[in-house]
Amino acid sequence: MSRVRILTEGDLRAIVKLDASAVDCVEEAFAALADKAVAMPPILRLDIPEFRGEVDVKTAYVPGFDSFAIKVSPGFFDNPKLGLPSLNGLMILLSARTGLVEAMLLDNGYLTDIRTAAAGAVAARHLSRDGASVATIFGAGMQARLQLQALMLVRPIRSARIWARDHARAERLAEEFSHEHRIEVAAVADPRQAASGADIIVTTTPAEKPILAAEWLEPGQHLTAMGSDAEHKNEIDPAVFARATYVADRLSQTRILGELHHAIEAGAATAEQPFAELGAVVAGKAKARVSADDITFADLTGTGVQDTAIANLALARAKEAGRGQTIENNVKKMGDAA
Amino acid sequence: MSRVRILTEGDLRAIVKLDASAVDCVEEAFAALADKAVAMPPILRLDIPEFRGEVDVKTAYVPGFDSFAIKVSPGFFDNPKLGLPSLNGLMILLSARTGLVEAMLLDNGYLTDIRTAAAGAVAARHLSRDGASVATIFGAGMQARLQLQALMLVRPIRSARIWARDHARAERLAEEFSHEHRIEVAAVADPRQAASGADIIVTTTPAEKPILAAEWLEPGQHLTAMGSDAEHKNEIDPAVFARATYVADRLSQTRILGELHHAIEAGAATAEQPFAELGAVVAGKAKARVSADDITFADLTGTGVQDTAIANLALARAKEAGRGQTIENNVKKMGDAA
Repeated sequence: MSRVRILTEGDLRAIVKLDASAVDCVEEAFAALADKAVAMPPILRLDIPEFRGEVDVKTAYVPGFDSFAIKVSPGFFDNPKLGLPSLNGLMILLSARTGLVEAMLLDNGYLTDIRTAAAGAVAARHLSRDGASVATIFGAGMQARLQLQALMLVRPIRSARIWARDHARAERLAEEFSHEHRIEVAAVADPRQAASGADIIVTTTPAEKPILAAEWLEPGQHLTAMGSDAEHKNEIDPAVFARATYVADRLSQTRILGELHHAIEAGAATAEQPFAELGAVVAGKAKARVSADDITFADLTGTGVQDTAIANLALARAKEAGRGQTIENNVKKMGDAA
Repeated sequence: MSRVRILTEGDLRAIVKLDASAVDCVEEAFAALADKAVAMPPILRLDIPEFRGEVDVKTAYVPGFDSFAIKVSPGFFDNPKLGLPSLNGLMILLSARTGLVEAMLLDNGYLTDIRTAAAGAVAARHLSRDGASVATIFGAGMQARLQLQALMLVRPIRSARIWARDHARAERLAEEFSHEHRIEVAAVADPRQAASGADIIVTTTPAEKPILAAEWLEPGQHLTAMGSDAEHKNEIDPAVFARATYVADRLSQTRILGELHHAIEAGAATAEQPFAELGAVVAGKAKARVSADDITFADLTGTGVQDTAIANLALARAKEAGRGQTIENNVKKMGDAA
C-alpha cells in the first residue's frame, strides 16, 4: 500500500511562503547544479493551437533532495473569456529512490511564482552589493511584487521604484506595496529615471523588445532579468553584455530562451562564451562581482531544479503540519491476481 | 473552484477492463493519428542512475477526445529488493479546452497494460484474417496473458500455444488461461513448432536478440511484436521484412525503438521506406493485408494517443459510476489578493 498526499492551492499557500526557507532551498538547488550530478532533461512541450493552449513539462533530479518534481504547466490563452486564469498547473513529487508517487501539489502555478521570486533573491544575494538599499522593478504584475519582496529578504532595501508600461498599474502597486511592507515605493514614469541610482534592478515584464538600455546602467548596479522564459521575449538591450558581468541560471537554456539568446543574435555575445552559471557562483566555483563598481547581470529563465527544491519544501512542511488529504493506493501488480 | 477527481488503482481496475470499449477507444485514437491534427511530442526521459531509476513522460492531444493525458512512468529496478514493484506511475488528465487538471489516475501502470493489449487487438482486427482461430504467444508475463485475451475480443480464437524461455512459466500460464477462458491452451517448448500453423503470433518478451526466425512464418499469418519499447530490445529477425507487410504504430518511433530500428541497422529496411501506420490502416487510408496468403507484421512500441484514449475512457466510466474522490481546488491567482 502506498500513500499519496494531495495538497490543494489553499494548503500550499498556507504552508509555503516567500521567506528565508524558500530562498535557501532554491539556493541549495542551484549549488547542486554546479556541484552534483543533477539530471535535468529538456522541457517537454505540447501545443494545442485549436484552443490556444500549450503545456510545458519540466523535471529535475537533484542529489540531496529526497524527491524529484515533475511540473506540468498549462497555458490556455482563451481561458479569460471563460472566466478562468490562463496559467494553471501542478507538480507531482516522486521518491528519488523508488519512483513512487508521494504527493500531488495542485498549486495552479503558485509554487512556480514562489520559486521564481526566490531565484531573484538568490541572484541578488550573490551578485548585488551587500548594502544594496534601493531597488527598481520593471513591471507591475505578480512577479514585480514578489521580486521586490524577495529582495527585502536578502538586502536592506529601504526604498523602491516601479516602472511599468501602464503607469496607473505601477502607481497602484507602489501604493499597495509601501502600505503592506512599510518601505517607500514610488511609481516612476520615465524608465531611465527609474533605473538611475538604483542598487538593484529587476525586470519582470513580457517585453518582446528591450525596455532597458545599456547606457542607463551605472557602476555597481546589479540587474536581474526574469521575464524571458520563451524565445520571443527580450527585456534587455544586448549592448549590456559589453558593460556587465553576465550570469545565467542555466547556460544551455539562456542560449535558447534567455537574454543571452538575443545577445547572440545581435552579435553582442557568442554561444561559446564561457559565462558563469548562478549555481557555480553560489557554490564558490565562479566569481561574478569582483569590485563594488562592477555591473552584474543575472539572466533567469526558470529551471527544473527550482521546482524540485520548492516541491520538497512543500512536502516537508505539509508533513510537519499534517496538512493535506491522503489517498491510500495499492501497488499490487496485475500478475498477482489475474 | 475546480474539481479534481482522484482514482486509485483499485477504482481503475473496477471500472476499466480489457473489453470491447477499451479496444474501440484505442482504435479511435489510432485512426485520429492518420486523420487529425494529433500533437504527440517526443518522450521526456529522466535518468537517476544512482538508484537504477528512469522516468518517461508521454503525452498526446487527440482531437475528438475532451481531455489529454500526461503519463508518468517510473521504472526503478532496485525496487524488488525493497519489496516494491519496479514499474509504477500515473496519468494526469487535463481538459483539452482549458488545460485545467480534471483527474489523477493513480493506476501504477494498470491503464498502460490495458491500452497496450488493446493495441494488439486493434492490430489483429485490421491485419489478421477474419477467421483467425489459432493464436501463439511468445512470452508468459502479464502482456502474454492480456494479448491473448485481447485477440479473443476480435477474432474467434479456439486454441492457443504459449512459448517462453522458462517453459515452466509457459505451462503455468497455459493451465491458468485455459481454465479461466475455456479455450485449449498448450505450452510448447520449441518456438518454431509453437509458431507453425498459428493464424496470429504475438511476441511479448523483453528479448534483446530475435526469438522468431523469418523462415518460420507461413503464408497468411499475422505477427504482432509488442515487446520492443526501447532501443536495445529486439524480438523479430530482420529478415521478416522481406516476407511480411510491415505496419508501425508510429513510424517516427519504430525507426528508433521498434523492430524497424533493428531492421534498418541490419540493412533489411531503410528509414525512408514508406511503410504504413496502423492508424492509416484503421482509417482506410492504407492497405496492409491484400490477400489471405499475405503475411502481416505489426510493430507496436506504445504511443501517447493510446494513453489519452484509455484515460478518457477511465474518466467517463468514473463519472458514470460516481467512482473516486473529489478534491476541491480553487483557481484564484495570487494577484487577486496579495
